[in-house]
Amino acid sequence: MNAETLERFKQLISENRMTTNETILEHHSKDESHHTAHLPEAVLFPESSEEVSKVLSYANETKTPVTPFGLGSGLEGHVVPASGGISLDFSEMKDIVEIREQDLLVRVQPGVTRSMLDKALKKHGLFFPVDPGADATIGGMTATNASGTTSVKYGVMKDQIRDLEVVTPDGQIIHTGNLAQKSSSGYNLNDLYTGSEGTLGCITEITLKVYGIPEHVTAARATFPGITEAVDAVTTIVQTGVPVARVELVDETSIQQVNKLMDTDYEVNPTLFLEFHGNEAGLNQDVAFTEEILNDHGCTDVIFEKDNQTRMKLWEGRHNLAYTYSHDYPGRSMMVTDVCVPISSLAEAIIFGREQLEKQGLPGGIVGHVGDGNYHALMMIDKSNEEDIRKAENFNKAIVEHALERGGTCTGEHGVGLGKKKYLEAEHGAALGIMKTIKRALDPNNIMNPGKFIDID
Amino acid sequence: MNAETLERFKQLISENRMTTNETILEHHSKDESHHTAHLPEAVLFPESSEEVSKVLSYANETKTPVTPFGLGSGLEGHVVPASGGISLDFSEMKDIVEIREQDLLVRVQPGVTRSMLDKALKKHGLFFPVDPGADATIGGMTATNASGTTSVKYGVMKDQIRDLEVVTPDGQIIHTGNLAQKSSSGYNLNDLYTGSEGTLGCITEITLKVYGIPEHVTAARATFPGITEAVDAVTTIVQTGVPVARVELVDETSIQQVNKLMDTDYEVNPTLFLEFHGNEAGLNQDVAFTEEILNDHGCTDVIFEKDNQTRMKLWEGRHNLAYTYSHDYPGRSMMVTDVCVPISSLAEAIIFGREQLEKQGLPGGIVGHVGDGNYHALMMIDKSNEEDIRKAENFNKAIVEHALERGGTCTGEHGVGLGKKKYLEAEHGAALGIMKTIKRALDPNNIMNPGKFIDID
Ligand SMILES: Cc1cc2nc3c(=O)[nH]c(=O)nc-3n(C[C@H](O)[C@H](O)[C@H](O)COP(=O)(O)OP(=O)(O)OC[C@H]3O[C@@H](n4cnc5c(N)ncnc54)[C@H](O)[C@@H]3O)c2cc1C
Ligand SMILES: Cc1cc2nc3c(=O)[nH]c(=O)nc-3n(C[C@H](O)[C@H](O)[C@H](O)COP(=O)(O)OP(=O)(O)OC[C@H]3O[C@@H](n4cnc5c(N)ncnc54)[C@H](O)[C@@H]3O)c2cc1C
Repeated sequence: MNAETLERFKQLISENRMTTNETILEHHSKDESHHTAHLPEAVLFPESSEEVSKVLSYANETKTPVTPFGLGSGLEGHVVPASGGISLDFSEMKDIVEIREQDLLVRVQPGVTRSMLDKALKKHGLFFPVDPGADATIGGMTATNASGTTSVKYGVMKDQIRDLEVVTPDGQIIHTGNLAQKSSSGYNLNDLYTGSEGTLGCITEITLKVYGIPEHVTAARATFPGITEAVDAVTTIVQTGVPVARVELVDETSIQQVNKLMDTDYEVNPTLFLEFHGNEAGLNQDVAFTEEILNDHGCTDVIFEKDNQTRMKLWEGRHNLAYTYSHDYPGRSMMVTDVCVPISSLAEAIIFGREQLEKQGLPGGIVGHVGDGNYHALMMIDKSNEEDIRKAENFNKAIVEHALERGGTCTGEHGVGLGKKKYLEAEHGAALGIMKTIKRALDPNNIMNPGKFIDID
Repeated sequence: MNAETLERFKQLISENRMTTNETILEHHSKDESHHTAHLPEAVLFPESSEEVSKVLSYANETKTPVTPFGLGSGLEGHVVPASGGISLDFSEMKDIVEIREQDLLVRVQPGVTRSMLDKALKKHGLFFPVDPGADATIGGMTATNASGTTSVKYGVMKDQIRDLEVVTPDGQIIHTGNLAQKSSSGYNLNDLYTGSEGTLGCITEITLKVYGIPEHVTAARATFPGITEAVDAVTTIVQTGVPVARVELVDETSIQQVNKLMDTDYEVNPTLFLEFHGNEAGLNQDVAFTEEILNDHGCTDVIFEKDNQTRMKLWEGRHNLAYTYSHDYPGRSMMVTDVCVPISSLAEAIIFGREQLEKQGLPGGIVGHVGDGNYHALMMIDKSNEEDIRKAENFNKAIVEHALERGGTCTGEHGVGLGKKKYLEAEHGAALGIMKTIKRALDPNNIMNPGKFIDID
């Protein structure tokens, strides 16, 4: 980018909303992952869809790469401006535009974070279920089709989206959906832009489904002698159709981290964290039935929590797990895998993953949204050590191949970014060609987040 | 098409699988709607994806229009071969390829009908929830993103799709998804082809989510003094989050039809048919809570049905409603509207619809999947009478505009076909341009179901 182009970008948005400050460029050069950083040439903080439209039009004209930026909590290098250009940071578009209580809908700007949304909804007796471990933005969560601990009951991001306002690479402002619960009108653009990781346009407004705070909630913590028993219990729960709201696996190593962080003395063994939402009678019956399943699978100890405070503490431990690993291994970077497999293959996938992880000998553990067949291995690697990187990459490759052979996917929720690009061919085969055709048609100058997701040249 | 082209198509599929028999051409010239019929030049009955691939490749080469055909139960003229060419009938691809009981998944060919699937699943204690009023094919249901009475709990077709095998217009055989419960890998092609009404390619295999038959089921029939009270009760049920499995509105005129058909003596007043699925204790609590809501809204009579046989009879009446209208008005055609609105606008939408229907004075009634905000006006029109057609079209226009003004959609489940094309501009605005770009990119010769859905010239 030459000085003139840069100056022109500056004029397209409101005052002081473009910067080339080194610290800010650096903050926008990377995410939470081990992927190599790359500086953008400028960071822009738009305040409206109209500004985004102007910026994209001009970027398109000048073929300037644009990388949308939410919170930068991604785990696959999605926001690394690998080809330079501008980083478009949505943190100044953070209005909760409308809460339609009667329709159980909320309309937000992309920079609203999950905790901001939670706080606003609580006053109305509502909540938004999708809860990735980071306090991500709704824009980023939509762009990655994020999910979380409650997706086993409430679904993933795409299941919550009713409408998106999207600015296309040529600056058009479109709406991809409507406010009705269902529609068969035209191609499904909601779900095309959801999960497109900023490669097709910028999401400037999101209309989401929200839910009444459940009347009754019970959490549980169940300890197992081995990981096989724990996972088999999950498989049975899912297969029998108990409408469990959360079921998370935390392995021994990770339980140790929780104990350190939360000052708890949970038994150091593979553990399931569960939760049930419902009316009182139904919930009690679900809990009793689940307890039987847990016991049938050799559960050595199960504790139920109805009290809100202790329940919150339980989930705080689970949610902050990744950060405790980072804290315990200063100087090391986190690499997190993300395969998802059909539920019938979950046990063998996790056992295979454990074996492979031990083989590589990297510090880390296994956790996951196992009710969805999705698990993560967290590995703490020394990025300056090629051996570490090789080991982690080998491990990832082995479990991705294992998952694909069983009809699974290389990424259940984190997305493609830089890290998973190399697996798309194996996963999608000829369908990857269709994806490229779509990208070429909707972003012919390849200005949107180039170098990530798929290559079209 | 010249004789040579026709002969070549014949050679591409197995013997006796192409016909130009008048009766069969006629059967493939129309659907269940009032839309004007148009004959295809030949009907082909492929037996495998490979055959479909060969046929599409050749059609693409010769720019021959291809109209996929399921059961022809559509209501918007989707299968009318408006531009001639071939009709591709999937009735010979009707294998239930695999039931993955442990994964709660089933893989079927597109010609499998809903009742064939039901029968096969029952043996495994499983069921598939999406139940349009006709015994449609799974291919057709996928291509229209169909839904039904249980969608308020289980979701619509797109919520059940894990993977599609699609043959693209240039004959490639692709897979759009995988077997995992969730994925953030690449653009969401499952949901792009679902609902694309045969305009992007042919669906040759579908992997669907299935469910364990619920342990306990209770149905209910609740009568109200007026339609406003009935709809207000539904709105409250939805807003309070009772996990109702079905909630259907049947107006007075339609109750009369049910009584005739089923030989019942249901009170002739606006009626809700409901159903609850769950564990015993939870279901009883839901039922008790719902009964309170019904009574609060002036329900004059509510009857609960736990017995399987009487419950089936209740739903048979609802499902066969459209056919009883057709039977009662021989020589007339059915025109069915399909708007869907945000739940907060449902009451005013239905009241507006009723007023407009009375104004036009056409015989018919109002029914609908009201828990989703979706209702249908069924009108019996004399197609040879221009005045009838004008009235019906005016009515449709009025309620579509009313719905769009409230953030709704012109079609909740029936799809676009020929009938809703004219409303897409008003509904989607600039997004329609994006849809056209996608169609142009994925079917550059416009061979797939041309003339329907969207025009790209
Ligand atoms: C400790 C930890 C735990 C995590 N746990 C989970 C988890 O449980 N589940 C899960 O799904 N993820 C998880 N993640 C990953 C991450 O939080 C998610 O991917 C999240 O959705 C990213 O949101 P963000 O706002 O940080 O987006 P960013 O990382 O800033 O961006 C992500 C992608 O979205 C694009 N983007 C952002 N905003 C827009 C916009 N407005 N328009 C268009 N494109 C945009 C970016 O270009 C990029 O491609 C975790 C991460 C960490 C660090
Ligand atoms: C009495 C009655 C009640 C109804 N109730 C409902 C209802 O409750 N909910 C609802 O959603 N619909 C309902 N419908 C409409 C209709 O049943 C649905 O639209 C159904 O999904 C159509 O399925 P089909 O097999 O008949 O498909 P068809 O009508 O044959 O085809 C529909 C569309 O799908 C395409 N198509 C078919 N097969 C394929 C394939 N293999 N690959 C690609 N494209 C294909 C066709 O080209 C066409 O565009 C009702 C219809 C009637 C007559």
